[in-house]
Amino acid sequence: MFKDFKLIAGRPVYIQVKDYMKHLIIKSALQGGQKLPSTRELSTLLKVSRNSVISAYESLEDDGFAYTVQGQGSYVSQGAAAQSGPEAASWTLDWTERLSSQALLAEELDIMKRGIRAEKGTISFTSIAPDERLFELDQVRRAFLERMSVEGNVLLNYGYAKGYKPLIDYLKQYMEHKGVDLRGKDLLITNGFTEGFDLVLSALGKRHGAVVCENPTHHTAIKNLKLHGFGIHGVTMERDGIHLGELKRALEEREFDCAYLVPSYHNPTGIVMSPEKRQGLMKLMQHYNVPVIEDGFNEELRYSGAHVAPLIAAAGGGNSVIYLGSFSKVLFPGLRVGWVLADQELIYYLESVKRARTIHTSTLDQSILYQYLLGGNLEKYLKKARLEYKRKYELTLACCTEHIPYASLSGDGGLHLFVTFAEGFRTRELLAACHAQGVIFTAGDIFFTDGTGQNTLRLGFSRVADEDIRRGIEIIGRTARQLMRG
Amino acid sequence: MFKDFKLIAGRPVYIQVKDYMKHLIIKSALQGGQKLPSTRELSTLLKVSRNSVISAYESLEDDGFAYTVQGQGSYVSQGAAAQSGPEAASWTLDWTERLSSQALLAEELDIMKRGIRAEKGTISFTSIAPDERLFELDQVRRAFLERMSVEGNVLLNYGYAKGYKPLIDYLKQYMEHKGVDLRGKDLLITNGFTEGFDLVLSALGKRHGAVVCENPTHHTAIKNLKLHGFGIHGVTMERDGIHLGELKRALEEREFDCAYLVPSYHNPTGIVMSPEKRQGLMKLMQHYNVPVIEDGFNEELRYSGAHVAPLIAAAGGGNSVIYLGSFSKVLFPGLRVGWVLADQELIYYLESVKRARTIHTSTLDQSILYQYLLGGNLEKYLKKARLEYKRKYELTLACCTEHIPYASLSGDGGLHLFVTFAEGFRTRELLAACHAQGVIFTAGDIFFTDGTGQNTLRLGFSRVADEDIRRGIEIIGRTARQLMRG
Repeated sequence: MFKDFKLIAGRPVYIQVKDYMKHLIIKSALQGGQKLPSTRELSTLLKVSRNSVISAYESLEDDGFAYTVQGQGSYVSQGAAAQSGPEAASWTLDWTERLSSQALLAEELDIMKRGIRAEKGTISFTSIAPDERLFELDQVRRAFLERMSVEGNVLLNYGYAKGYKPLIDYLKQYMEHKGVDLRGKDLLITNGFTEGFDLVLSALGKRHGAVVCENPTHHTAIKNLKLHGFGIHGVTMERDGIHLGELKRALEEREFDCAYLVPSYHNPTGIVMSPEKRQGLMKLMQHYNVPVIEDGFNEELRYSGAHVAPLIAAAGGGNSVIYLGSFSKVLFPGLRVGWVLADQELIYYLESVKRARTIHTSTLDQSILYQYLLGGNLEKYLKKARLEYKRKYELTLACCTEHIPYASLSGDGGLHLFVTFAEGFRTRELLAACHAQGVIFTAGDIFFTDGTGQNTLRLGFSRVADEDIRRGIEIIGRTARQLMRG
Repeated sequence: MFKDFKLIAGRPVYIQVKDYMKHLIIKSALQGGQKLPSTRELSTLLKVSRNSVISAYESLEDDGFAYTVQGQGSYVSQGAAAQSGPEAASWTLDWTERLSSQALLAEELDIMKRGIRAEKGTISFTSIAPDERLFELDQVRRAFLERMSVEGNVLLNYGYAKGYKPLIDYLKQYMEHKGVDLRGKDLLITNGFTEGFDLVLSALGKRHGAVVCENPTHHTAIKNLKLHGFGIHGVTMERDGIHLGELKRALEEREFDCAYLVPSYHNPTGIVMSPEKRQGLMKLMQHYNVPVIEDGFNEELRYSGAHVAPLIAAAGGGNSVIYLGSFSKVLFPGLRVGWVLADQELIYYLESVKRARTIHTSTLDQSILYQYLLGGNLEKYLKKARLEYKRKYELTLACCTEHIPYASLSGDGGLHLFVTFAEGFRTRELLAACHAQGVIFTAGDIFFTDGTGQNTLRLGFSRVADEDIRRGIEIIGRTARQLMRG
């Protein structure tokens, strides 16, 4: 005994001694009622200071693993050892038999468990997360320290389901500056877009059991719509957004509980819906009385042209649009903060659903984000990020045009481009062939609502170095041509 | 125009100028194509530096709200104004008609929307949140800065659904030191206990549609069980935990999908289940093959006696217990971090459900907590917190004994006591009468699974000052006696 004790850095020695002794007690190497070595003895055995052992014994006592007999020393508490042997009630279940269909479906649709893992050295176009090298850590640090000094105790205790008030107010104004009429609306803070979408789908009754959306669309949205039991009707994308004629036919044919739409830098096509189409779209939705869930995805990553107001702005004083916002693709996805801006009555109910799910979003995340935004850091950061992403966007676009034998290419900004090959081409085969050469991307079929899209792929460029963009796309293009010839 | 501009502190002036101009553009006070005042002119009008106006105009341009004509000045972009008037597709829906039964039920069961609001000066025994004055902000600050300097960029980008690896490993060891056999088990990080419970209930198939639990029990658990459509069978509490005879009869009579149990510092009774009863309980559950969801609530707030191993430890190498852990009642609830320790196959599915819900828990929260724990701060904090809470616990206990005409009183530690009056006494009436005198507590009926408990109340003392504990309990006691006489 006491031979396998090893110190690690960054953790107080006395805690390590306590942990070690606990381990021995748990494993019954030291038994209930047994006397522990004297502090002097143990300090020699473990080669640590006697003070560390004294503190360790005190801490063992605090945790109820040992007790002191005055003048005699420390003893192991009865019952502290792990239960094992005949007295343990140790039985095993087959959990897979007991899982809900939702859990099974969540696993089945979990593309993180299906995708190709990028080995070291692989050029990967699969991510559309921000490039972390652009993050300004000093500003985040400062925001944290400022907020902590103002109200640290409050930040660390329970907050409110609706969110951190200063952030709610900030984001309301932020949305007002996108042209949103706030009258009759309210805002709920969520753990990113995903929770917001999940809460809204939970709160929405299934009167018709179906949702209309763009085809292709965000694969997480497809997953969550399926998990909530909604049928999905996808409508073809045109170069300037959803096909209105086809949408009209769909709305004519059957009833939908809502539409899910990504009007700006649409995932995966990168298309920004034109202002005219937004107007036409909203008129249609109004005519058929179908509410809209608007995914404000990447709205901030506009590289040129005039501001395009979100759909919720086009709805004026109406309450028919639920806007889901997030800075995850722009700022820091590690801070899980998003928001739902919608009718105040609806938000009142969403708040209760949110409270039942996660109580509230991390107050620390919210307060850091608030302080960061208040200090004008988003503007500074966006200036830098837009410049860098625009450069990468143009490089990727140029490389695609030069190397890839595509049928069509889209992407008006944001962090990715979408490539469509001729009918019959299979990007899964292309992916396999490229993977063998150390290049991967996202096969586009996962974004399609109707099992098509086998001839498409998405290229995320935000985290790929320039020379890798060039080399990767050259390989994709060359391999595609080989497959076309083959 | 330009008269109502007012500067606030803490936000760069140029951003405030930009915000102000955006506001005018959105409201069509400045219209598309209209020339903006010259920078010199606006700086005079708004009484800000010309540089601020120049930066504001640049930033307006970055956001697509303005454009520059070389040599002529800045102009408002077309289409940036909010949509209003005849062209807006503004219609209203009745959202309450479209809500799911789950959303309606979540609102109905949302006691935060039903409880009495504590006006300033009220002595409130309703909270069992930690006392934020005990928080050691310096340690949290240090943990943040240390983690940020090691891997700030990584922390701010996307993490993993399962959690932040160093924290997962730390908590596994932490649980091992409570006597848990980790073989075949895995750990998932969640947004506190509530998300963990919600995920587990989502993942659990409703083969029998019923859950057995203690009566009374944690009201959030009751709410979430109902929201998930489970029937709830509550089993009477004895002084040392759940009534095993009654539990046996319940298990005999019908099948349950699982048990939900709070063995330590049970909410609301504050009872710690005895080690013997834990053994007996687990034997019963094994016999009837019913898995257990164990709520590790407050396990750290033991003020005296030997360490009592959690049920998951009593289950040895078996996989039948799902342990839900959290430091929210001990450390910082504002950091939304909890964990599920369970069978590894089950965790594999829970991970996918978690990913579909919230992608992952705030990496910043997780990494701060990890660094805080690694540095041995929990031990130091617990030493201080236990001392303080124990003192308050004893004071509250003494005051109750002196003043309150209870039939029974329980609470072995933790942050609250539970008072039961004679049959027929109504604590809702007592609450109304005390509220009129500036004292509130939690009426106990909300914790009961069968509509009983009208003669009970919970007293949370963690955030009440000593003199308020004395004064508040004296008032409760006096008022109770008056009601009994009346």
